[in-house]
Amino acid sequence: MSEPAAPTRRYDYVTDGQEIYRRSFAMIRGESDLTGLPPDLHTVATRVIHAAGDVRITAEIAAHPDVVGAARAALGAGAPIITDSLMLASGVTRRRLPADNEVVCTLRDPRVADLATAWDTTRAAAAVSLWGDRLEGAVVAIGNAPTALFHLLELILDGGPRPAAIVGMPVGFVGSAESKVALAGHDLGDGSQVPWLVVHGRRGGSAMAAAALNALATEDELA
Amino acid sequence: MSEPAAPTRRYDYVTDGQEIYRRSFAMIRGESDLTGLPPDLHTVATRVIHAAGDVRITAEIAAHPDVVGAARAALGAGAPIITDSLMLASGVTRRRLPADNEVVCTLRDPRVADLATAWDTTRAAAAVSLWGDRLEGAVVAIGNAPTALFHLLELILDGGPRPAAIVGMPVGFVGSAESKVALAGHDLGDGSQVPWLVVHGRRGGSAMAAAALNALATEDELA
Repeated sequence: MSEPAAPTRRYDYVTDGQEIYRRSFAMIRGESDLTGLPPDLHTVATRVIHAAGDVRITAEIAAHPDVVGAARAALGAGAPIITDSLMLASGVTRRRLPADNEVVCTLRDPRVADLATAWDTTRAAAAVSLWGDRLEGAVVAIGNAPTALFHLLELILDGGPRPAAIVGMPVGFVGSAESKVALAGHDLGDGSQVPWLVVHGRRGGSAMAAAALNALATEDELA
Repeated sequence: MSEPAAPTRRYDYVTDGQEIYRRSFAMIRGESDLTGLPPDLHTVATRVIHAAGDVRITAEIAAHPDVVGAARAALGAGAPIITDSLMLASGVTRRRLPADNEVVCTLRDPRVADLATAWDTTRAAAAVSLWGDRLEGAVVAIGNAPTALFHLLELILDGGPRPAAIVGMPVGFVGSAESKVALAGHDLGDGSQVPWLVVHGRRGGSAMAAAALNALATEDELA
């Protein structure tokens, strides 16, 4: 194609990407009450609210007190990010990652379909069992399938590898809210937990989970 | 790694993917009032509500009366799907596409950065001008950047190529709601419009836009 020309500007809108971010985050801070959340979670919550396009989501955000520190330390040390969906993996902004971290999604592994059938579960859940030893110390994000989050908890509670942090934001009407309650209430046997971050209720999804990962990856809001 | 074993089932949850979809869609139909939407939009709306995890979004869904027919005809005839973000492109379920349709996103085209600077706009908006002739007759979905939707409308109103349908679901606090009002109110000069589908207000995003595309691609809810 020939070199394109800019079309005639017909609408009045902000075209500076950084300015859009600045104004957006200022609006979110003005409209939402973050006082119920630990201070180190405020930038993460702001980005999740931004992805939701809805300050009402603030009340659904909950977290283990160590999640931001644990996730940042793990990513800084080069830990992989593991996701339940290709869409979520695609939403991770690579330039924000502190150590060029690997982003893993095993949903298309050729073994997934047979394992899901054999185990009478979803492909998303079966794919979790293919994370293998990469799960140890990783930052995990579930943005789609409640079954993947339940399966992950079952794997960990069976004594499997322990991730550094879990972003639990599956979306939906069946099992989603329950899976996040399970994550927030899990017990490793000694009263401790894998640090977690959730959006309670039915809402969540790849976009919000990606926003959480991108905010955990760096504190810089405008990176 | 050795062959994985299924972890101990510790939680009570539905593990049949088809059954999860069936129950989810039944819950959505039970809780949401779709009577304000044209009948051929009901399956599309149901999937968008599913992606939102929130039946309150129903009131924000609006559409041109021809959008479902126009998008299905275009996709059936092999038209490409064009998106403003890689995450949205990644969310299109390829097996649902009727003609193995191409999914295009030009955001990583090496010309984007320079064009955005030269035109004083965002990269997402500049990338729209690189769709070129592929835009004619395509099904376009905007799930991220309001600037991309404004730019697309400006390109069309300048006499550029006309897509078959536009899914307008950018998310955010700055320009998002306004861009969807602009799409719903555009006039090709003769009182006609490119058929459109929007989620009004600040909400939207790649997950909802992908759900809309996946529902437009095939009527089969459980494909």
